[in-house]
Amino acid sequence: MTKPHVDLYWDIGSTNTYFAFKLLQPIVARHGAELVLHPYNLGYVFRNNDYELMKESKAKLRYRKRDLMRWAEKHQLPFQIPRQFPIKSSRVLRGSLAMRQKGLEVAFVEAALEAYWEQGNAGIVEYAGLRPIAERLGVDPDWFEATSASDETGALLAKSTDDAVARGVFGVPMMFVGDEMFWGKDRLDFMEDELARATA
Amino acid sequence: MTKPHVDLYWDIGSTNTYFAFKLLQPIVARHGAELVLHPYNLGYVFRNNDYELMKESKAKLRYRKRDLMRWAEKHQLPFQIPRQFPIKSSRVLRGSLAMRQKGLEVAFVEAALEAYWEQGNAGIVEYAGLRPIAERLGVDPDWFEATSASDETGALLAKSTDDAVARGVFGVPMMFVGDEMFWGKDRLDFMEDELARATA
Repeated sequence: MTKPHVDLYWDIGSTNTYFAFKLLQPIVARHGAELVLHPYNLGYVFRNNDYELMKESKAKLRYRKRDLMRWAEKHQLPFQIPRQFPIKSSRVLRGSLAMRQKGLEVAFVEAALEAYWEQGNAGIVEYAGLRPIAERLGVDPDWFEATSASDETGALLAKSTDDAVARGVFGVPMMFVGDEMFWGKDRLDFMEDELARATA
Repeated sequence: MTKPHVDLYWDIGSTNTYFAFKLLQPIVARHGAELVLHPYNLGYVFRNNDYELMKESKAKLRYRKRDLMRWAEKHQLPFQIPRQFPIKSSRVLRGSLAMRQKGLEVAFVEAALEAYWEQGNAGIVEYAGLRPIAERLGVDPDWFEATSASDETGALLAKSTDDAVARGVFGVPMMFVGDEMFWGKDRLDFMEDELARATA
């Protein structure tokens, strides 16, 4: 029997990715499943779809902030809305693929999400800001930066995003259990129901 | 002490209004609160904001349908996606204001929501389709239609929508407990937390 898994498509630029990532892990562990990460270049997809992130009304943006703080409070997460937003996420996404080679993808993504969404550290958009994370995880920062910046990694990231779009992923955080797709931090209960069925 | 209440801004053209309306009532009852309805002309607001309802990608629309069926299944509601969608909702909205005069607003809105979202009956866009609902609730259908179609009711509906927009309501279903705003069928848990605080 293969170990059941949950696919998570993520981008650090997505607030809800932060929440989903944090709330997903205990669920995955509870069911003895594995978390499989897929970087998804949201900016790239949005550019191709003429999406304008900041087009929403003031009332809606104000509500969204309130809603995020409610989630943080309910789940006791030290979330803060960063001053710099949106950010360019491609280096973090590339970095995750480099760290995958060391078996440290999940730890790296978690550290980057915390740096940005808890500490408001927008320095992670550059390799200079990511190198200390790699180093803390025991990875040579020169190797980390060279591997992240390589053409191979760039092609892998493009393929990860293209494959996701082909699978029907139109945004993040998107999760799959088998072929069942779940979108957003507020569908984790449905995702867990499906995971329970899949692992029964 | 005044009885605590939950404001619900609704439009029959909104699928999530159906779910919120159904799921809200037991919560409101549990806390000894009152449900106060506010018709909200979504089409009118959208027209003024250049919103195109069907502009979403096929992948997103497909997901949305799947998500709705998951909600129906989870909560054992006989929901069906109607063949005719979207619909013009102004007569239902007007009708609710007429029925308010008889103290039958909630019962009328529930019946109209069920007719459309459970039985797929798009006839409710016309008074001919709404008259039997009024009659079943013991209201003279001629009075119902004349009152619904009156200029006074039209002005009242416009005011209800304008007041909502001024309060920050950018979509439906929108709920308020005091000044705290909650959007969507998937924030009923937050809404209930707030209601519990307000009635403690």
